[in-house]
Amino acid sequence: MNKQQNVIVIGAGLSGSLLALRLAQRGYRVMVYEMRPDLRKVDISAGRSINLAFSNRGNKAMKLVGLEDKVKSLCIPMHGRMIHDQDGNTFQSNYSGRDQEYIYSVSRGDLNALLLDEAEQHENVNIHFNKKCKSVDFEKTTALFKDYQTKTEFIEDADVIIATDGAGSALRRSYFLGKKFLFSFSQDYLSYGYKELSILPTENGGYQTHKNALHIWPRGNFMLIALPNLNGSFTVTLFLSYSEGEYNFDNLNTPELVELFFEKEFPDALAIMPNLTDDFFNNPTAALGTVKCSPWHYKGNTLLMGDAAHAIVPFYGQGMNAAFEDVVELDAVLDKHEGEWEQIFKTYEKQRKKDTDAIADLAIDNFLEMRDHVAHPIFQEKRKIEMALEKQFPTQYASKYSLVTFNENIGYQEAMLRGRAQDKAILSLLKNNSITSSEDLSSVLKKVQQETENILNLSSDL
Amino acid sequence: MNKQQNVIVIGAGLSGSLLALRLAQRGYRVMVYEMRPDLRKVDISAGRSINLAFSNRGNKAMKLVGLEDKVKSLCIPMHGRMIHDQDGNTFQSNYSGRDQEYIYSVSRGDLNALLLDEAEQHENVNIHFNKKCKSVDFEKTTALFKDYQTKTEFIEDADVIIATDGAGSALRRSYFLGKKFLFSFSQDYLSYGYKELSILPTENGGYQTHKNALHIWPRGNFMLIALPNLNGSFTVTLFLSYSEGEYNFDNLNTPELVELFFEKEFPDALAIMPNLTDDFFNNPTAALGTVKCSPWHYKGNTLLMGDAAHAIVPFYGQGMNAAFEDVVELDAVLDKHEGEWEQIFKTYEKQRKKDTDAIADLAIDNFLEMRDHVAHPIFQEKRKIEMALEKQFPTQYASKYSLVTFNENIGYQEAMLRGRAQDKAILSLLKNNSITSSEDLSSVLKKVQQETENILNLSSDL
Repeated sequence: MNKQQNVIVIGAGLSGSLLALRLAQRGYRVMVYEMRPDLRKVDISAGRSINLAFSNRGNKAMKLVGLEDKVKSLCIPMHGRMIHDQDGNTFQSNYSGRDQEYIYSVSRGDLNALLLDEAEQHENVNIHFNKKCKSVDFEKTTALFKDYQTKTEFIEDADVIIATDGAGSALRRSYFLGKKFLFSFSQDYLSYGYKELSILPTENGGYQTHKNALHIWPRGNFMLIALPNLNGSFTVTLFLSYSEGEYNFDNLNTPELVELFFEKEFPDALAIMPNLTDDFFNNPTAALGTVKCSPWHYKGNTLLMGDAAHAIVPFYGQGMNAAFEDVVELDAVLDKHEGEWEQIFKTYEKQRKKDTDAIADLAIDNFLEMRDHVAHPIFQEKRKIEMALEKQFPTQYASKYSLVTFNENIGYQEAMLRGRAQDKAILSLLKNNSITSSEDLSSVLKKVQQETENILNLSSDL
Repeated sequence: MNKQQNVIVIGAGLSGSLLALRLAQRGYRVMVYEMRPDLRKVDISAGRSINLAFSNRGNKAMKLVGLEDKVKSLCIPMHGRMIHDQDGNTFQSNYSGRDQEYIYSVSRGDLNALLLDEAEQHENVNIHFNKKCKSVDFEKTTALFKDYQTKTEFIEDADVIIATDGAGSALRRSYFLGKKFLFSFSQDYLSYGYKELSILPTENGGYQTHKNALHIWPRGNFMLIALPNLNGSFTVTLFLSYSEGEYNFDNLNTPELVELFFEKEFPDALAIMPNLTDDFFNNPTAALGTVKCSPWHYKGNTLLMGDAAHAIVPFYGQGMNAAFEDVVELDAVLDKHEGEWEQIFKTYEKQRKKDTDAIADLAIDNFLEMRDHVAHPIFQEKRKIEMALEKQFPTQYASKYSLVTFNENIGYQEAMLRGRAQDKAILSLLKNNSITSSEDLSSVLKKVQQETENILNLSSDL
């Protein structure tokens, strides 16, 4: 097998820089093309969220490439959701009843820079910035680029081309517009947008609110969240309808209205956001969409990975983790079929797509859960029971959230099916007063397990 | 309100010709542009199925425009499914236990011609053939056409433009490529294709097999169906995987292999299909896809209707019926808001989309049911019970099929939710031996109703 094969990677974001690193470690000659300037040299906002949730599936990939420790140093633990009510009262709901299970806040830019640095240490990697892919000829395995500096266009070819160029992927557009094969594709937008805001550090660089949590202000039809940054600031995100409801992005069109909105809905946040209205009117309102498609590959020539293949909404904190897990999955298939690209791409998609479809659907579910359900008594009762079960029976019970986030050895699809059935089981048992939070826990566990099996069996019926 | 408004209708297929007729009846000036030649003058195969299932929802539209009787004369009743096993044995499964409930086979061409004739009798309608819409400027409410005869391009404007130009709609493409607003869109292909074949009439113009049924040869992973035509022939359709399974379109590549395949799987059909291999290799293999999108309209300027807004797979026999029902629904909204196009389009989509989404999903369900389940004993047991319930309690019970097909006064979505719950209820009761086909029917009805309510309540829970 000739390891000196040339691979073009389109896009040097989180997904592309990790992929380039891993392919380089495996011995391939990797050429990476990125439309943006080098983020290590130029301060750019990629138009995407500034910090991200990082958890076990992403960490599995960092272990694979030997970067677990370096990445950990960029991370801030978030042990649970800190929920803020309208009066400014807070209560914390941990992500798991097992103490060692929590997620991290990490800076997109810092993590991307680390991956680029590590990739570039391999002499068989070349990264070209300011070069935008315009289209891919997937039959000839060539890509057309525009050089933003020289304003010229050029074509590159390779043995294979892998596109990690995000939700607006040029390769995916070429699949769609090419009409050379049946390409199933969907883009689904929520009627909600998001806007990034900020809580600045204290004067001595400290945190203005509890550091080790993901803060949520759930308000039914909209919500605010905040994740900590290493410098003491928080990146705050407002999720709000574009045009529906009493408050929306369309009608919050003056500083006064924005202030009034925050005063009424998020008074404790407003108190530490003196720069609110500047942020609000300087920062763009961005869309929330899900992209699914199939096939991801054309023969053994080209492949979509990461957001280019499966962009999801951010509500499960799994977008980056799923993209990183893609690389782990592809790597495992390379172990088996190295050299046979068509077989590699086919096997990879067959194994992987069910799981990325599942996390896309779970992320939509979690939008409703975070925005709305977390504030409901029956949901809080359910979480209380699940935390107790996880604490007392750490090897026997894992909530849906734990299955998705902390159980990297099962796929997203399995986590979704079991997790949804468990949720249904507990809510139904609670509603029928068949279990209570004061009951003996081993009896609760038995009932939940039994009801979960019933639901799983019922739904697998014809 | 100025009724002399100009409306451009793009596409003069079933959907566009009905829409043009109805808008003309309401007094609008209607200009219709169709890319194909006039099918009343030139014998064209539109590349789509030759005959179609016509039922209550479609007939509701024919009543609206006063064509019920004329259409009925083009129709052949099909009382049920005639199921053919591998040995050529048949049994008929009626569509309903109520004698007056059945569907019709109708020729696409004849019906389209009738609608064109009726539309053209209105002096405020002009239909232009051989003029293909290339794109729509939905902000200016203009459309760009190419005249296939003069090879020239021209632009037309109107007060509103409604696109009924099918699954490959030019307006929908303009929405997608324009990126002027968040356009959710999906195209989903099955891994199956279809090919049209034929059973010719007997020498004296009679039918070679039972006339008044929809014939099905279900074989698990593929199937053959046949619908009768007025001239004694049947249009036969083979649904088969492109590339998977023992037999597929890729590997059935010689006349001998096709003959062998039919000999083994459809011997009784083969016996009356002497022209099988000619048909097989002359006719194209066509794709099966579902298209969903939203929004359907841009402000009050442009609107998608019919397949352009919601193309579905053919397995529920509802594609044309859904497109016709679109016109009935739009007409009802026009009654309320005439003159306010944006309000009309918005209200229409809000009321209609949930139902066209539902029939898209039901059509996929029915693919599995027709291909596979109809041949299973438990499914046949279920149908037997449902037929008996419909017969004995005609006002109290309607199967999913009846709700979808014969209950035009409830929407597809309601039919789907209730129908699916009923199916689940009966199958679960049968599996647990909680009901039997020999049991007293009023007791069965009670149990089915009770279990259906349980399931509906369970699924409406959080």
